[in-house]
Amino acid sequence: MSIIISGTGRYLPEEVIGDEDFLQHEFYNADGTKIDLPNQKIINKFKSITGIEHRRYVSDNQSTSDIGIIAAEIALSDSGIDPETLDGIIFAHNYGNVKAGNIQSDTVPSLAARVKHHLKIKNPACVAFDVLFGCPGWVQGVIIAHQFLQNGAAKKYMVIGAETLSRVSDPHDRDSMIYADGAAATVLEYSDDNSRGILSMASQSHTYDETYFLYFGESFQEGYTPETKYIKMLGRKIYEFALSHVPLAMKNCLDKSGVSITEVKKVFLHQANGKMDDAIIERFYKLYDTELPEGIMPMTIHYLGNSSVATVPTLFDMVRRGDYEGHELKAGDVVIFASVGAGMNINAITYRM
Amino acid sequence: MSIIISGTGRYLPEEVIGDEDFLQHEFYNADGTKIDLPNQKIINKFKSITGIEHRRYVSDNQSTSDIGIIAAEIALSDSGIDPETLDGIIFAHNYGNVKAGNIQSDTVPSLAARVKHHLKIKNPACVAFDVLFGCPGWVQGVIIAHQFLQNGAAKKYMVIGAETLSRVSDPHDRDSMIYADGAAATVLEYSDDNSRGILSMASQSHTYDETYFLYFGESFQEGYTPETKYIKMLGRKIYEFALSHVPLAMKNCLDKSGVSITEVKKVFLHQANGKMDDAIIERFYKLYDTELPEGIMPMTIHYLGNSSVATVPTLFDMVRRGDYEGHELKAGDVVIFASVGAGMNINAITYRM
Repeated sequence: MSIIISGTGRYLPEEVIGDEDFLQHEFYNADGTKIDLPNQKIINKFKSITGIEHRRYVSDNQSTSDIGIIAAEIALSDSGIDPETLDGIIFAHNYGNVKAGNIQSDTVPSLAARVKHHLKIKNPACVAFDVLFGCPGWVQGVIIAHQFLQNGAAKKYMVIGAETLSRVSDPHDRDSMIYADGAAATVLEYSDDNSRGILSMASQSHTYDETYFLYFGESFQEGYTPETKYIKMLGRKIYEFALSHVPLAMKNCLDKSGVSITEVKKVFLHQANGKMDDAIIERFYKLYDTELPEGIMPMTIHYLGNSSVATVPTLFDMVRRGDYEGHELKAGDVVIFASVGAGMNINAITYRM
Repeated sequence: MSIIISGTGRYLPEEVIGDEDFLQHEFYNADGTKIDLPNQKIINKFKSITGIEHRRYVSDNQSTSDIGIIAAEIALSDSGIDPETLDGIIFAHNYGNVKAGNIQSDTVPSLAARVKHHLKIKNPACVAFDVLFGCPGWVQGVIIAHQFLQNGAAKKYMVIGAETLSRVSDPHDRDSMIYADGAAATVLEYSDDNSRGILSMASQSHTYDETYFLYFGESFQEGYTPETKYIKMLGRKIYEFALSHVPLAMKNCLDKSGVSITEVKKVFLHQANGKMDDAIIERFYKLYDTELPEGIMPMTIHYLGNSSVATVPTLFDMVRRGDYEGHELKAGDVVIFASVGAGMNINAITYRM
C-alpha cells in the first residue's frame, strides 16, 4: 500500500502588494522607537534580507475559508474523484476567518465544515476538522490524514492550507511586509501502487525555549489600537532556530525513507525568508557532504511572500502543473516537503511522484 | 495491542453562576424583539427545558490554555508516566484564548504548544497541535491520537479538551445560560493488555443543511456591540438533528465493537440540554429493543452547564475517580463516549475499562 497525492489546487489572491503600498507606513522598532530611516531605505533593506518584493492579499469580501474553498474545488477536480467518496477534510489554518476591518476570529463551524458545506458533500462519513500547527499546518494535516489512510480507516482525504495573514498584520511593524494570503489543497488517496507515494514523515514541536518566538502581540506603535493584537515574530531567534534544527529534521525524514540524497529532485521549503531558506538548504546538503544541486529549491517568496500554511502546497501545485518555469517533475522523482513555524514546529515529508 | 486511557484530570472553574446572575439581563428573541416576560419566568422556563441551574466560569485572569494546563498536569500525574515520554499533545477547543473584556482569539502559538511549554517537556518528538471540531473535539482528538498509536507512530498521547464559552456568550440571548467553561485531559497509551482499551470509534460531519446550526452571530439586542459576534445556536433544529442522528451513530459505534448493549455500563454523553440527552439515550436503547437501565447516564448539566469539548472528559474523570456519587466503574466495564456539536459533528467511542 501507499498514500499518493492525486490532486492539487491553489488560489493566489488577486491583489498584488508592492513597495509603493508600504511607502506611507510609519515603521517602529519592537521597543516602540520610530525607525529613523526613510521608508524606501527600510523597504530596500527588508527586501535584501527576505527576498520579498511583492505579496498577495485577499479582497475585502474574502475570508480564509472562501479561498480554501476555491483551492479545494480545483484540487478535487484535478484528482477526478467523486467528492462524495472523500473520507475526510482537514483544514489547516491558524487564525480562522478574520473579516476585513474586524479583529474577531470566526472558527465555528470549523473552516473544514464550511468547505464541505460549500462542496455540497452529503456523505456524513466525510469527517471535517481543522488543525492548528503554525505555518507547518498543511504538512501536519497530511501527516494526520496519512494515519487514517494507513490504518485503513479512510481511503481518500483532502488537506487544505489557507490563511489571511494580512488580517492580523501590524502596519507599524516591518515584518508586516513578510505576511501574505493564500490557499492550496491536495487530495490524498490510498493506493496499491507501491512505486510512488509518501515514503517517510517527521514532525517536531520545540516548545521549551521557543514557544513564543511567534506570538500575538501589541502594535509596535505605542497607543495604536491598544486592545488589538497582531502576529509578531522574533526574526533573529527564528532564523537561528530554523538553521540549527530544520536541516537535521529534513535529514531525519529523508534517512527514514531510505532514499539517497542524490535522488532528491526538489525541496519544497516553507517560504518565510529567502536568505534563511538558502542557508537551510545549504546546510542540509552539507549534512550529506553533497554539493547543492542547481534548481533544487523553487522559490516563490519574492512575489508571494509568506502565506503560512498555504506556501508549501502552493509551491508544489505550481511545479506539479508545470506553472513554474525551469522546474518540472516527472514520475519517480523524489521530493521533500518541509516547513517551520509557530510552535515552534518543524515537519517534513519525503514523497515519490 | 490496545489503546488504553491511563490517566485523567479535570478542572472545574471556581466561579459558580446561578439564577441571580441573570436576573438583571435583558433577554431578546432572535428577531430582535424583547422577551416579554419577567426574568425569573424566563430563567425558570429555561431551567425546565435544559436542566441547567448553575454553570462555572473562569476568573478574569484565566484563559482556555491556562485551565487546559491544570487538567493536563492532573492527568499526567494520574497516569504516572514521565512527561518526556509523551509522543503528542492534542488540544481540542473552538475559540482559542479569548481574554476577559476582549474579543480577539489568540491561537498562535497553538494552545497545545503552550501546554507543552508550561509542562517543561523538552522532547521535540512530542508533537503538539490543536483540533477544532465543535463540542465533539475531545472525542475527535482521541480518535486522531488513536490513529498514531494504532500505527505504532506513537506510544503515548495526551488529549485535552478546554473551552471558555463565557467569553463568547451574548448576554442578551437566553442560550447564554447554557454555556460554561471547563477543562479536562486524558493520557492515552499503547498497551499489550488486550483485555481493555478502545473497542470501536465512529465519527460524522453533517454539513449539507446543518453547518450553520451553530454559528458566530450578532447579539440579539440590536445595536449592542455591532462589531462583535457571539456563539449562536438554532436550538430547535439542533434538538431534532441530535435526536435523529446521535442514537444511530452511537449504535453504529457499539455494533462495530461487537459488544452487546447489555454489557454497556455507562454512557458519557455531551451535556448541552438535559431533555435532549434523556431523549437520545431513550431512543438509543429503543434501537436495541432494550429497556433503559437505571443510572446508565451520569449528568452534570444541572450544575456545570455545557462546557463544550470539556464536558465528556470531565464527566468521565468524575466517575472514574469515584467523585460522582451513585456512579462507579470497575475493570472490564464497557462505556460509551458520545458527543454532538458545531459542524454539525457527531462521534462516539466504545471503551472497556
